[in-house]
Amino acid sequence: MKYLVHMDVKLPTEMPTSESAELKATEKSYSHELQQAGKWPEIWRVVGEYANYSIFDVSSHDELHDLLQGLPLFPYMDVTVTPLAKHPSDIK
Amino acid sequence: MKYLVHMDVKLPTEMPTSESAELKATEKSYSHELQQAGKWPEIWRVVGEYANYSIFDVSSHDELHDLLQGLPLFPYMDVTVTPLAKHPSDIK
Amino acid sequence: MKYLVHMDVKLPTEMPTSESAELKATEKSYSHELQQAGKWPEIWRVVGEYANYSIFDVSSHDELHDLLQGLPLFPYMDVTVTPLAKHPSDIK
Amino acid sequence: MKYLVHMDVKLPTEMPTSESAELKATEKSYSHELQQAGKWPEIWRVVGEYANYSIFDVSSHDELHDLLQGLPLFPYMDVTVTPLAKHPSDIK
Amino acid sequence: MKYLVHMDVKLPTEMPTSESAELKATEKSYSHELQQAGKWPEIWRVVGEYANYSIFDVSSHDELHDLLQGLPLFPYMDVTVTPLAKHPSDIK
Amino acid sequence: MKYLVHMDVKLPTEMPTSESAELKATEKSYSHELQQAGKWPEIWRVVGEYANYSIFDVSSHDELHDLLQGLPLFPYMDVTVTPLAKHPSDIK
Amino acid sequence: MKYLVHMDVKLPTEMPTSESAELKATEKSYSHELQQAGKWPEIWRVVGEYANYSIFDVSSHDELHDLLQGLPLFPYMDVTVTPLAKHPSDIK
Amino acid sequence: MKYLVHMDVKLPTEMPTSESAELKATEKSYSHELQQAGKWPEIWRVVGEYANYSIFDVSSHDELHDLLQGLPLFPYMDVTVTPLAKHPSDIK
Amino acid sequence: MKYLVHMDVKLPTEMPTSESAELKATEKSYSHELQQAGKWPEIWRVVGEYANYSIFDVSSHDELHDLLQGLPLFPYMDVTVTPLAKHPSDIK
Amino acid sequence: MKYLVHMDVKLPTEMPTSESAELKATEKSYSHELQQAGKWPEIWRVVGEYANYSIFDVSSHDELHDLLQGLPLFPYMDVTVTPLAKHPSDIK
Repeated sequence: MKYLVHMDVKLPTEMPTSESAELKATEKSYSHELQQAGKWPEIWRVVGEYANYSIFDVSSHDELHDLLQGLPLFPYMDVTVTPLAKHPSDIK
Repeated sequence: MKYLVHMDVKLPTEMPTSESAELKATEKSYSHELQQAGKWPEIWRVVGEYANYSIFDVSSHDELHDLLQGLPLFPYMDVTVTPLAKHPSDIK
Repeated sequence: MKYLVHMDVKLPTEMPTSESAELKATEKSYSHELQQAGKWPEIWRVVGEYANYSIFDVSSHDELHDLLQGLPLFPYMDVTVTPLAKHPSDIK
Repeated sequence: MKYLVHMDVKLPTEMPTSESAELKATEKSYSHELQQAGKWPEIWRVVGEYANYSIFDVSSHDELHDLLQGLPLFPYMDVTVTPLAKHPSDIK
Repeated sequence: MKYLVHMDVKLPTEMPTSESAELKATEKSYSHELQQAGKWPEIWRVVGEYANYSIFDVSSHDELHDLLQGLPLFPYMDVTVTPLAKHPSDIK
Repeated sequence: MKYLVHMDVKLPTEMPTSESAELKATEKSYSHELQQAGKWPEIWRVVGEYANYSIFDVSSHDELHDLLQGLPLFPYMDVTVTPLAKHPSDIK
Repeated sequence: MKYLVHMDVKLPTEMPTSESAELKATEKSYSHELQQAGKWPEIWRVVGEYANYSIFDVSSHDELHDLLQGLPLFPYMDVTVTPLAKHPSDIK
Repeated sequence: MKYLVHMDVKLPTEMPTSESAELKATEKSYSHELQQAGKWPEIWRVVGEYANYSIFDVSSHDELHDLLQGLPLFPYMDVTVTPLAKHPSDIK
Repeated sequence: MKYLVHMDVKLPTEMPTSESAELKATEKSYSHELQQAGKWPEIWRVVGEYANYSIFDVSSHDELHDLLQGLPLFPYMDVTVTPLAKHPSDIK
Repeated sequence: MKYLVHMDVKLPTEMPTSESAELKATEKSYSHELQQAGKWPEIWRVVGEYANYSIFDVSSHDELHDLLQGLPLFPYMDVTVTPLAKHPSDIK
């Protein structure tokens, strides 16, 4: 089941560079694992913003919430989730 | 180049069924052509709404505008376009 | 899987009473069927508005969209869907 | 009498983990008491957010306000309350 | 129990004057009855708008919804309801 | 002349309890004086929020602004003022 | 007492030119009378919009509402009223 | 003096094609004249919308308002005007 | 040329009283100079808010921006500027 | 390809003047380089705000995102990007 997820990141500007660098590195490897597992098939950067639009493909709301809550940057994000259904014009 | 496109359709409730059926059929075959040409790789229905989120993959803003303006339902849509860049965590 | 659904109905004020009465009657029996099938376990009236908050319990986004799109009043509604996960404090 | 309550929690990111852990534990047991007393029959997590939608069932506005104001996380929450009436299509 | 109710009226500009005059007269006498019964203790005009803020004093959400839905102008109104509790600084 | 005033209080969560307790006590006695003087005839708590809706009855905009600006909690409030006129349906 | 009033006019595009011309002429002479009486000391056009910002100087909310409600274009306007107090930096 | 102008066009969907075609042709030649006169140096289509962002370069607010109000499509537009000053980083 | 300017001031609540008092005094004398020079002909307090609506009368966008940016409270303000044209009903 | 970019800067008011002065100087020379390279052909100050509207002219979304993310003030900005297409009335 597909969900469109918008993540908007707001790191405190006073956070030390070493701390934010570590957070971002952990975030990246966490994301890589989920992409490789097929749970997070798409991630795009919103041009000009520290934000992304992503597609998640999971089997339940509970699974999606656990994945999102586990993001290292979760406490610094505004997240919006939109459930997606098959479109009648989709040829796939 | 990728764009996230949100289309929100508002057909007048007084439009005769035959007219709206014809519009939707034309829209569907127009969409099929663009999907087959690889210009419109993804289209999802927003659950509970007469709306979709789509990914377009075209070579310029002008090309995208021409494709969207050519949609048979264009006069009845609110369209929002978000340009998407490659995300540094994307493994593809 | 649970979804919170908000439906806001706007019937055209010029619709003949007989037509709106028939629409509402069909809507009611459609709703009764879904409630009896356990798909629509809760429906509440928002005080002072021609609107409701409902809980749907279905197995997929596609199923929910089909049920909502089938509502006789669907062309006259603004619908908002919020996916709900289990809350860690829930004792049930 | 039923109310839909939306609680959106924003803990300061600089709060020590021990303090937030204790707050959340107290919140949980407070919620359990109200659920067991039948005052707080439903609580759902909003997917992807540190927020919940809940149903409260109490006998007056004053009682609801006292319960909400007593939440250990109340100073960190944006709360929205929607009064709910019986829906004419409800079969219960 | 008190509720603050905001009613914003939008009569279609093409409605014949005789029809709107009759609607308003019926609305006025309906309002008078509820004021005399103590259910609608306050009504104020919002300066510069065809809108009012009112206080209702009723015993349940269901009762309030029935009263509001019975307003002759209800199909032409946007209504917003805010439940009010006793304020700790209130000296009454 | 009547005004509807909405006050939304946001105390910094790091303010010491003793300081906020003193502020609230001063606020309360200030409010009592204005209520007794007939300037502030109504004050209600918005259910679930650290906010109130109030009615002020004063002779000019300048007087109202002075009273509001004098509130001990004024620096921590978002205040919205709506001027109210007599409603033609009011029976008082 | 001063009020800032914003008037946003939306004439139906299907209104015959003769009707709108007459409405605007009546509006203009109504405005002239109030300006000459000192009740409506300032009126400015918002650049690019069929809207104005105005200053009204009247002795009560009731008087202002009566003046605004009497505007020939009132049924086609969205009106917003902001009460203005003397500013401590004003040198007049 | 420069202004950023956003024009959002909403033609009624029931307008006959001949009428809208004529409106658009008149609009185009009106725009050409102003561009040639140097008053309207830039006009861009907002991708996916029947809207444009434009730069106007005129000597006063009054002149700009007259130009915009003279647009054949003016009655069908929402227009927003933002005054622009020289930026200290501008190298021109 | 006239502009309506809305200034909304948000001083940090932790700023020492001596610092804010000095800022406000400097602001006041700066405002007095501009009023005396005829650049800032009107300033009103928005009732209940630490905000004002003002009229500026200057010869260019650049001049207005320089004046506003020079306000001692500028770093603590949200400023909104609306260009005003002569209104056809204005009798002055 | 053209993009309209809106940048809204919010420097923390507690940042030392030396730090903000250095940031702004670096920002300025960075902007100069991009203007000289033809990537950033227009930049205007929004009157009364610490904000600008700019035109960027680059060959891809990725290039634009890299340029914007490289701005020294990027961590303190809200950035909004609007893709622009050629307008059919443009005479250039």
